[in-house]
Amino acid sequence: MKIESHIAHFTNPLYLQSGRILEPYDIAYATYGELNEDKSNCILVCHALSGSQYCAGEVNDKRGWWDNLIGENKAIDTNKYYVICTNSLGSAFGSTSPISQMYPTTKHYRLKFPVITIFDMIKAQRILLNSLNITKLHAIIGGSMGGMQTLSFAIMYPNIANRFIALSTTHATSPFVIAFNKIMSEAIRNDPNFDNGNYDLTYKPILNGLKVARMTGFLQYITKNTMQKKFGRNYVNHDGLFELFGRFEIERYLEYNGDNFANTFDPMCLLYLLKAISIYDLSYGFIDLCDALKHIKNKLYLISFSGDNMFFTEEMQEIKNTMDKAGNGSLCSHYIVESDYGHDSFLVECNKYADYLQHILK
Amino acid sequence: MKIESHIAHFTNPLYLQSGRILEPYDIAYATYGELNEDKSNCILVCHALSGSQYCAGEVNDKRGWWDNLIGENKAIDTNKYYVICTNSLGSAFGSTSPISQMYPTTKHYRLKFPVITIFDMIKAQRILLNSLNITKLHAIIGGSMGGMQTLSFAIMYPNIANRFIALSTTHATSPFVIAFNKIMSEAIRNDPNFDNGNYDLTYKPILNGLKVARMTGFLQYITKNTMQKKFGRNYVNHDGLFELFGRFEIERYLEYNGDNFANTFDPMCLLYLLKAISIYDLSYGFIDLCDALKHIKNKLYLISFSGDNMFFTEEMQEIKNTMDKAGNGSLCSHYIVESDYGHDSFLVECNKYADYLQHILK
Repeated sequence: MKIESHIAHFTNPLYLQSGRILEPYDIAYATYGELNEDKSNCILVCHALSGSQYCAGEVNDKRGWWDNLIGENKAIDTNKYYVICTNSLGSAFGSTSPISQMYPTTKHYRLKFPVITIFDMIKAQRILLNSLNITKLHAIIGGSMGGMQTLSFAIMYPNIANRFIALSTTHATSPFVIAFNKIMSEAIRNDPNFDNGNYDLTYKPILNGLKVARMTGFLQYITKNTMQKKFGRNYVNHDGLFELFGRFEIERYLEYNGDNFANTFDPMCLLYLLKAISIYDLSYGFIDLCDALKHIKNKLYLISFSGDNMFFTEEMQEIKNTMDKAGNGSLCSHYIVESDYGHDSFLVECNKYADYLQHILK
Repeated sequence: MKIESHIAHFTNPLYLQSGRILEPYDIAYATYGELNEDKSNCILVCHALSGSQYCAGEVNDKRGWWDNLIGENKAIDTNKYYVICTNSLGSAFGSTSPISQMYPTTKHYRLKFPVITIFDMIKAQRILLNSLNITKLHAIIGGSMGGMQTLSFAIMYPNIANRFIALSTTHATSPFVIAFNKIMSEAIRNDPNFDNGNYDLTYKPILNGLKVARMTGFLQYITKNTMQKKFGRNYVNHDGLFELFGRFEIERYLEYNGDNFANTFDPMCLLYLLKAISIYDLSYGFIDLCDALKHIKNKLYLISFSGDNMFFTEEMQEIKNTMDKAGNGSLCSHYIVESDYGHDSFLVECNKYADYLQHILK
């Protein structure tokens, strides 16, 4: 599989939903496979909160986050399709974000960075595609925050793709998820080393707030049952049950997970992405959800997981039901995968929907 | 209703499960109503994580946390019953805890305080009852951490009460809840003002870690649906949607809740109580749960709530099923209250089980 990594630099202004402007700005992206002659085999993949443009293969010794799904002879077959995955605006892997420099100075945006919305993210991706002379996609696909982008594409640029495939997502972020995002934001902001965003970007201190934020996120990503199966009530060897800071295995795992994340991600980027997710509402600027969904003109496939406790199956079904009401329900299918793994199912249990995906991509 | 508040001082050693000793120690407690002549009308109430001995009436302008349930002509009728509620060992309202002085010095325990277990808590309560010459209780009742105490009483001191009533609790804390407790502990420990427990106890700084801990706990206490009904996606007036730190109503509520809690509770006490909950396992010291539950000799009533996402109805049912297996299932009833409010149901929706409670207390 041919993998390329690029950063596209744009000098025109990007008008954001907030009324602010990014000028200039970068979109980092990676491609997998090869574009055919009539440019009709392109699939755009949108990543989730902690994801990046590196969705497949191996880059920098790290396996792509959807490598189970994307590659030669896999469900998204790179022998057939040319996959593009861009790093979201506001994310930490090369696209313009709080850790970018504020042209023409060498100062970094930090907390002066504008709030980015899901609509802004897709606008930037569309501009990138235009710059590559790709005007029609075979499909757009994404889970979680990537699913929010997919749904937004479907209503804002209904003709940009022949099919839209949104997994493990919602039409408007629930107060339950907003509450989790709040805890994560507060954990970051309360960290003295975060220093209101003024920490050293070249030599990052250990950011405990970022670690706690990641640990908190994790509570949403897998279910009670998955934790029970994976960790049970096992206690860490050599830690004392009656030591105040003795640890269960689940606690050690959370620490490990938090450490890893804090080493690769940026806390300001996380704040901005959490904000984008919290304020996401597909009906924003429309009369209501029904009015928004009326704009959909091509097939929309929803895939949800019965054990997802972050974005519930019911929320996905509401999209389907509302499209029925809007009169374009025949364009929409909702496929529910039985699973009690949790929100991370769309990343972990690819085998449960790979065949279905392969079928709808035909 | 007659309310009295006391602190009992004990000079004998209290041998803790950890092998450490508390000597001397205090048990703060409050009583409601009047003890009858043969001391047969006493009900012991056990409080939850953030609770105190002030479960009914009004003390210091604050309504008791179970005032809906306990009082004259209420389900736990103080015209009939004499209610005792003690402050748990390790809690912040007068019983010996990390903020107590280490006799004979005037230094405070702080993080030198021993880890306290649920078994330790009930042992101390039994000693208090003995000191009051109360040897047989009409009932013991408690929810959540109070339910853990109730269940522990039932197996450790099976003849101490005629009936045991445990609400919204479990037989062993699940890794899911341990994970939440971990986040809360980390939030507290990472707070620079916490200063590894060396903050000024007489003039407490604003402890943001404690606030975040409370906010995190809150995510377990009410459900997604309750948040949706209470707050929806309403945004705070005068906060900007595109301001990074603009807030939804649910976020403001979390802040408010966190502030209130940080004003009344102590972060070290919270650490110790969370630890007690995490390591709680009814089968500890027995072969297994079945072996533990065999010790139950009097009626055990379990009350759970279908929407409790912290201690699930299934966990309560496992107690009932295991008692069936242990051969004393006829002593156990499990009453499931239909509710989607969440874990806090046992505090908020008393009307849903008050009649049942009144019935079983007869």
